[in-house]
Amino acid sequence: MPEPPRTLEGWYALHEFRRVEWARWKGLPIAERQAIVAEAREFWQAAEEHRDAPEGASAVYSVLGHKADLLFLHLRPTPDHLSALERAFARTRLADFTAETYSYFSVTELSFHEAQARGAMQNPMEIPFVKARLKPQMPDKRYLCFYPMNKRRGEHLNWYALPMEERQAMMREHGTTGQRYFRVVKQMITGSVGLDDWEWGVTLFADDPLQFKKLVYEMRFDEVSAKYAEFGPFLVGIRVRPEELDGVLNG
Amino acid sequence: MPEPPRTLEGWYALHEFRRVEWARWKGLPIAERQAIVAEAREFWQAAEEHRDAPEGASAVYSVLGHKADLLFLHLRPTPDHLSALERAFARTRLADFTAETYSYFSVTELSFHEAQARGAMQNPMEIPFVKARLKPQMPDKRYLCFYPMNKRRGEHLNWYALPMEERQAMMREHGTTGQRYFRVVKQMITGSVGLDDWEWGVTLFADDPLQFKKLVYEMRFDEVSAKYAEFGPFLVGIRVRPEELDGVLNG
Amino acid sequence: MPEPPRTLEGWYALHEFRRVEWARWKGLPIAERQAIVAEAREFWQAAEEHRDAPEGASAVYSVLGHKADLLFLHLRPTPDHLSALERAFARTRLADFTAETYSYFSVTELSFHEAQARGAMQNPMEIPFVKARLKPQMPDKRYLCFYPMNKRRGEHLNWYALPMEERQAMMREHGTTGQRYFRVVKQMITGSVGLDDWEWGVTLFADDPLQFKKLVYEMRFDEVSAKYAEFGPFLVGIRVRPEELDGVLNG
Amino acid sequence: MPEPPRTLEGWYALHEFRRVEWARWKGLPIAERQAIVAEAREFWQAAEEHRDAPEGASAVYSVLGHKADLLFLHLRPTPDHLSALERAFARTRLADFTAETYSYFSVTELSFHEAQARGAMQNPMEIPFVKARLKPQMPDKRYLCFYPMNKRRGEHLNWYALPMEERQAMMREHGTTGQRYFRVVKQMITGSVGLDDWEWGVTLFADDPLQFKKLVYEMRFDEVSAKYAEFGPFLVGIRVRPEELDGVLNG
Amino acid sequence: MPEPPRTLEGWYALHEFRRVEWARWKGLPIAERQAIVAEAREFWQAAEEHRDAPEGASAVYSVLGHKADLLFLHLRPTPDHLSALERAFARTRLADFTAETYSYFSVTELSFHEAQARGAMQNPMEIPFVKARLKPQMPDKRYLCFYPMNKRRGEHLNWYALPMEERQAMMREHGTTGQRYFRVVKQMITGSVGLDDWEWGVTLFADDPLQFKKLVYEMRFDEVSAKYAEFGPFLVGIRVRPEELDGVLNG
Repeated sequence: MPEPPRTLEGWYALHEFRRVEWARWKGLPIAERQAIVAEAREFWQAAEEHRDAPEGASAVYSVLGHKADLLFLHLRPTPDHLSALERAFARTRLADFTAETYSYFSVTELSFHEAQARGAMQNPMEIPFVKARLKPQMPDKRYLCFYPMNKRRGEHLNWYALPMEERQAMMREHGTTGQRYFRVVKQMITGSVGLDDWEWGVTLFADDPLQFKKLVYEMRFDEVSAKYAEFGPFLVGIRVRPEELDGVLNG
Repeated sequence: MPEPPRTLEGWYALHEFRRVEWARWKGLPIAERQAIVAEAREFWQAAEEHRDAPEGASAVYSVLGHKADLLFLHLRPTPDHLSALERAFARTRLADFTAETYSYFSVTELSFHEAQARGAMQNPMEIPFVKARLKPQMPDKRYLCFYPMNKRRGEHLNWYALPMEERQAMMREHGTTGQRYFRVVKQMITGSVGLDDWEWGVTLFADDPLQFKKLVYEMRFDEVSAKYAEFGPFLVGIRVRPEELDGVLNG
Repeated sequence: MPEPPRTLEGWYALHEFRRVEWARWKGLPIAERQAIVAEAREFWQAAEEHRDAPEGASAVYSVLGHKADLLFLHLRPTPDHLSALERAFARTRLADFTAETYSYFSVTELSFHEAQARGAMQNPMEIPFVKARLKPQMPDKRYLCFYPMNKRRGEHLNWYALPMEERQAMMREHGTTGQRYFRVVKQMITGSVGLDDWEWGVTLFADDPLQFKKLVYEMRFDEVSAKYAEFGPFLVGIRVRPEELDGVLNG
Repeated sequence: MPEPPRTLEGWYALHEFRRVEWARWKGLPIAERQAIVAEAREFWQAAEEHRDAPEGASAVYSVLGHKADLLFLHLRPTPDHLSALERAFARTRLADFTAETYSYFSVTELSFHEAQARGAMQNPMEIPFVKARLKPQMPDKRYLCFYPMNKRRGEHLNWYALPMEERQAMMREHGTTGQRYFRVVKQMITGSVGLDDWEWGVTLFADDPLQFKKLVYEMRFDEVSAKYAEFGPFLVGIRVRPEELDGVLNG
Repeated sequence: MPEPPRTLEGWYALHEFRRVEWARWKGLPIAERQAIVAEAREFWQAAEEHRDAPEGASAVYSVLGHKADLLFLHLRPTPDHLSALERAFARTRLADFTAETYSYFSVTELSFHEAQARGAMQNPMEIPFVKARLKPQMPDKRYLCFYPMNKRRGEHLNWYALPMEERQAMMREHGTTGQRYFRVVKQMITGSVGLDDWEWGVTLFADDPLQFKKLVYEMRFDEVSAKYAEFGPFLVGIRVRPEELDGVLNG
């Protein structure tokens, strides 16, 4: 049996995608819509300041296309915090004019190997690199790209049947591609084996959305992606600050 | 023809996933919602005490993400008990504010081989290990993870075409991985060949939800999973005691 | 080109799965619900007595899980009878509180080879075995299991490219497994090539639902299933006599 | 590169499948329903007489099972005619009580090779065989079977990588099977590469619906089907003359 | 690692497919429908003139079949422009009578190699060929065909594992096929790796819709398509000028 990689985990993540039911929303008087947005803005300010939990991070994005209109992204220490946030939003009046179309539940992940390379591992959260990966603040970037993925377990090409050294060599090559984009694309890797339908979630942040295409396309030629990656849906969004919600919904 | 493994079965299981229609629910006056929750709580207390059947077990979980809000999990001696419970819940007023989004019908299963290793098989239910596997009480753990799975019947890798010794050797290795998590993750294995769309249901229980990820990820490197497992959706929930229903729905 | 097997066919079959819209149903006054059930009971008594056709058989089942609540199963000499029954039910008031979630259209089938082994083939319907397979009465069994299936046409394993003798040898082995369950599981095989999305429908009847699991699991190790079978959804139901409809819907 | 076959095309085809919303339909007073059916009957008489276009053909079928209740099948010289007919029906009152559940857009097709074998190709539409294939009248048969299909482009078995002679030899064998059913099953082959999700649509017409099963099953053993065919959904319907619409909807 | 091709990108594209809810639409008084169409026509005139952005192009198409009734196609310099247009349409009254059934988000793409062959690359947008590919005006053609596609990453046939020369040779052959249709079919290639669920979007424009079938079928025999292409849904539409909207919706 090939040895499984050891991993470190941090905050749990919930990506909650919602579609706005515009016809019903627009049927409300504008004063009522403004009151509803004010309540939602208050909810989001509290979430961004993680008033519901000792630590964490949250952000809203406006999503392109038919899959969703809004993404609510939360990072919190426990699933209980995420579940409470999901239900707390369901209790806002804005929620009544949206429907949850997709979601993803995962937890920030870093390979022990990668963490170890950055310093002593007695208190990993004291190593800035580790903390930034496991308890990441929301990057101050305008665009987000999210997609879930698996490593292939084909009848001939099977990631989970490869020796660890081979897997590590491919991951190193893959990391090199990512590093070339270090300044323009920030990555958040979350693990979801046993938590949701795919094995990992990848969340990218950039100020130039073209870099999502450039990075993911270049990576697709890495051996690990070319031969072993399976991809779920891709969703792209634009950051919405709490004070911009009114523009998005009533603008 | 490879010999099929002999199995013992116990209670039938129904995993019933439901989404709450929050907008309609919140449209009710709070007094009405409380009355509805009181009725549902009474229903669930009766279910947990299996007042509808001589034996059995039931529990409610609040589910993360868009796939469902609540999981109603029932174990009972016959499909008739499960069908009656499903319809009895449909008759509660709370049911009118939920929609069934997914379900799984299966029966607790133990390989004869494993049972035999634990003692004489004349009255298997008198062997505590066997009874705990086939007529399991709901573990007193905060988190649940459910997923259905198949063994692969690929054109090259075909579980059902392997000799029994090879299958048993792989299952033994797999069991060893499970045993390393024995204290932190409790497993309930249910068979569903001929009953539902996948061949097995796996229900895990833990107080630390990270252990779901650790266990399932480690197992994925076991030869039997790496080469022969196919997985359906993964759903994670948080235990809700009957007296906590009001907090979840009206909190 | 491998020779196609010759087959005999009998009655056409329609498996019609419907979900009850409980909230709307329960919104009716009980007297109205009882009147609606009385009309449906009358419809079902007439269907079971095939008053709409010179011969045939019908039965209702209550289905477990989210896929459906009721299965209406009809066997009739022509598709026209089935279409008329489908529309006749749509005209009952009960239909307005249900939605058709799945269906399967097929025709009872027996291999010419198997029929021939039972007697002279000039008037096959006069051979009791043949008639019981092609014009089967609804077995007096409490549980039903339905699933559609294909024979695999893979890039390497291709049922339709095997010589007839090889196919027949595998089918004989498969038949032997079925025969071991002869007393506890009754099978109805219907063909649906050119009629519906899978190639065959399998309908099993038993008084002990565990035998569905035992039979289908054991068969999965038969070479023909292990290597060449592809399965659709599995649905399990409990027989509902016309006079029991009120208990199921209003109980 | 293997040479692509040359083809001739004729009328465009739209298969439009619609489900009747029975509960809402039955909620109307019978007089209103009759008026609505009268309008629809008038629409269908005009369509069958292709009053909207210089040439073409149309027919209605009542479909078995949950996938649809009605099939509206149109053949016209241009997509514009089909689009206009689709919208014209949407404007009838009957349309408000139906929902479009599936459709298929394609164009009648004949291989140049097959056409050439029937005569000089300067004015192909003057050759009766060619005209009957490319501008077919609706056969006067009671039953219809529709399914879309692809030729496989597998990693090992790839139709599009075979030399033309090999493809032609397999198609000839396939044609022979079809010809054995010439008197009982009429075929309409439409191409949809670049027009809809599958590469071809197959529409069969017969007075004995069992012949659909016999023909498609026998063909499945032809090398071209056994190894290279991929099939979409199968739908079966019963011809409805305009004057029979009232019986189907109000009967 | 095979070298990834370098690409140039231009405008972002949003293909937004919407279904008309005819029953609700037709329920409005004709005067109201005309006012709503007038507002939508105004919206579309502004979009076609890209009054919301310094540059760009837009067009509306009426789509055949059940997948959609209308396609709104926008090209703009940034995702923000597309998101604003999507929301601006959602704010029109016509939007309340439509539902978004599908969409595609991508960006016009040209291989660096192809661009370079056309001239010096210091200011690529000054080369007419490059500008026409990356900032294309909507072709004055009556019909549109859209489909998304991937390059295969199979276990044996893997585009991303081929050496660049091999890929380039196959793409050259493929380009030759396209060029034979140069006068009758105009192509717009958009990349969507990292942006949407498939790797590319292909949008074809023609005055003779048969050429879509001819071109795509002929290309299917190109080695690159035969062995390495995977296709998503195909959608075909007919151009609707702003002044024709009334005819399509109220005609």
